[in-house]
Amino acid sequence: MALEDIRIVLIQPAHPGNIGAVARAMKTMSLSRLVLVRPNVFPSQEADRRAMGAIDILQNTKVVAELGEAIGDCRLVIGGSARPRSFPHTMLDARQCGARLVQETALGESAALVFGPERMGLSNHDLDRCAYQVLIPTSDAFSSLNLASAVQLICYEIFLAARDPDSEPIAQPSELPSSQGELEYFFGHLERALDSRGYLDGEMREVTMMKLRRLFGRSRPSPGEIKILHTLTRLIHRDGG
Amino acid sequence: MALEDIRIVLIQPAHPGNIGAVARAMKTMSLSRLVLVRPNVFPSQEADRRAMGAIDILQNTKVVAELGEAIGDCRLVIGGSARPRSFPHTMLDARQCGARLVQETALGESAALVFGPERMGLSNHDLDRCAYQVLIPTSDAFSSLNLASAVQLICYEIFLAARDPDSEPIAQPSELPSSQGELEYFFGHLERALDSRGYLDGEMREVTMMKLRRLFGRSRPSPGEIKILHTLTRLIHRDGG
Repeated sequence: MALEDIRIVLIQPAHPGNIGAVARAMKTMSLSRLVLVRPNVFPSQEADRRAMGAIDILQNTKVVAELGEAIGDCRLVIGGSARPRSFPHTMLDARQCGARLVQETALGESAALVFGPERMGLSNHDLDRCAYQVLIPTSDAFSSLNLASAVQLICYEIFLAARDPDSEPIAQPSELPSSQGELEYFFGHLERALDSRGYLDGEMREVTMMKLRRLFGRSRPSPGEIKILHTLTRLIHRDGG
Repeated sequence: MALEDIRIVLIQPAHPGNIGAVARAMKTMSLSRLVLVRPNVFPSQEADRRAMGAIDILQNTKVVAELGEAIGDCRLVIGGSARPRSFPHTMLDARQCGARLVQETALGESAALVFGPERMGLSNHDLDRCAYQVLIPTSDAFSSLNLASAVQLICYEIFLAARDPDSEPIAQPSELPSSQGELEYFFGHLERALDSRGYLDGEMREVTMMKLRRLFGRSRPSPGEIKILHTLTRLIHRDGG
């Protein structure tokens, strides 16, 4: 994954804590290049504190005076803003934004994702430097995402888009489910145990065993778990069989 | 969109600021029910400050002493944790988690998403109360998501899943799963029965009960199935208790 070509640009961030939180959010999603345009305070202890293990990103953060310096070498610039504009931009949602950034940087070109000041967001002037506006889907009633949260969500979509869908399956339990034969052997044992206690008399036998099959079959017990179930079954059996 | 049936549960949050940030994250994604288990400090000015326009969520936040009180009436409980366990749970990624929560609450049943303390995350004990573990995809090198960021990401996936008009509800079992309270009552009964046969002596008690919790928790037994399990448990009990 080569996400070093995608940079995050914060214009005039007011709260140092947010800068640290943005660095941490970026690092969880494998991004590393942060650029600040006229930050209110930087560097700062508060930023370092909120960055936690992402201090390295703050140490490599570039501070510039103008947006142009931050994005001059980029071939794709996307502006993050929840505010609709009277002259609407071409809009992407967060997922489309992640896919677009990954596609366009695949050949080593640089791209930037730009966010405005916490209170006001991107100015029209700055948004006009962006090819697209990205809008994170939110509640209509309350769309006020924290700056670091907005960066976190888009970096997450970038990370997912960059991840080869075939390469990283989510973690599976370390033990495989038992074979059908092992399962059948257990059901046989359980049926004999219940029989020995007179619990399967008459027409209930079939229904009860069917219900037990459904229940245990659904959990797909591992061989280790089947062993425990055999132990429980022996405890049920009248003769401990 | 009816997301009021999905609650967020924070166990022993240490930093009041995180509680406020979680409330804000929830509200941007249309969630509103927050429950705190033994918070370090609550209510607090710091939480109010970070909540911004989501003060209403903090005002309606429930504080309880035990996780059981927070999830007793829920039919689906999912635990958020980045830490792999030696006895792995059934895993969902954030997107699957969002879809699952929306599908299963579509009929008005309650569900909970549980997070542990900032530093340690969910204990094994608390994670064993969850049918699934949700893992947010992150960088292998740095997976340390801020608590509010983790809540933000999963709430975002819940919001998207709820909004998606195409998302087909998964086939429902004819019976709903039992509530967490009913499940706990069964585990208590089973533990007493195994005790009566001397099967939980010494240090094996905890491991054995943990394995049984995983096994039965995974199959999410219906109230009818729980009845059968109580019957089997009585057959195990020395005095038929």
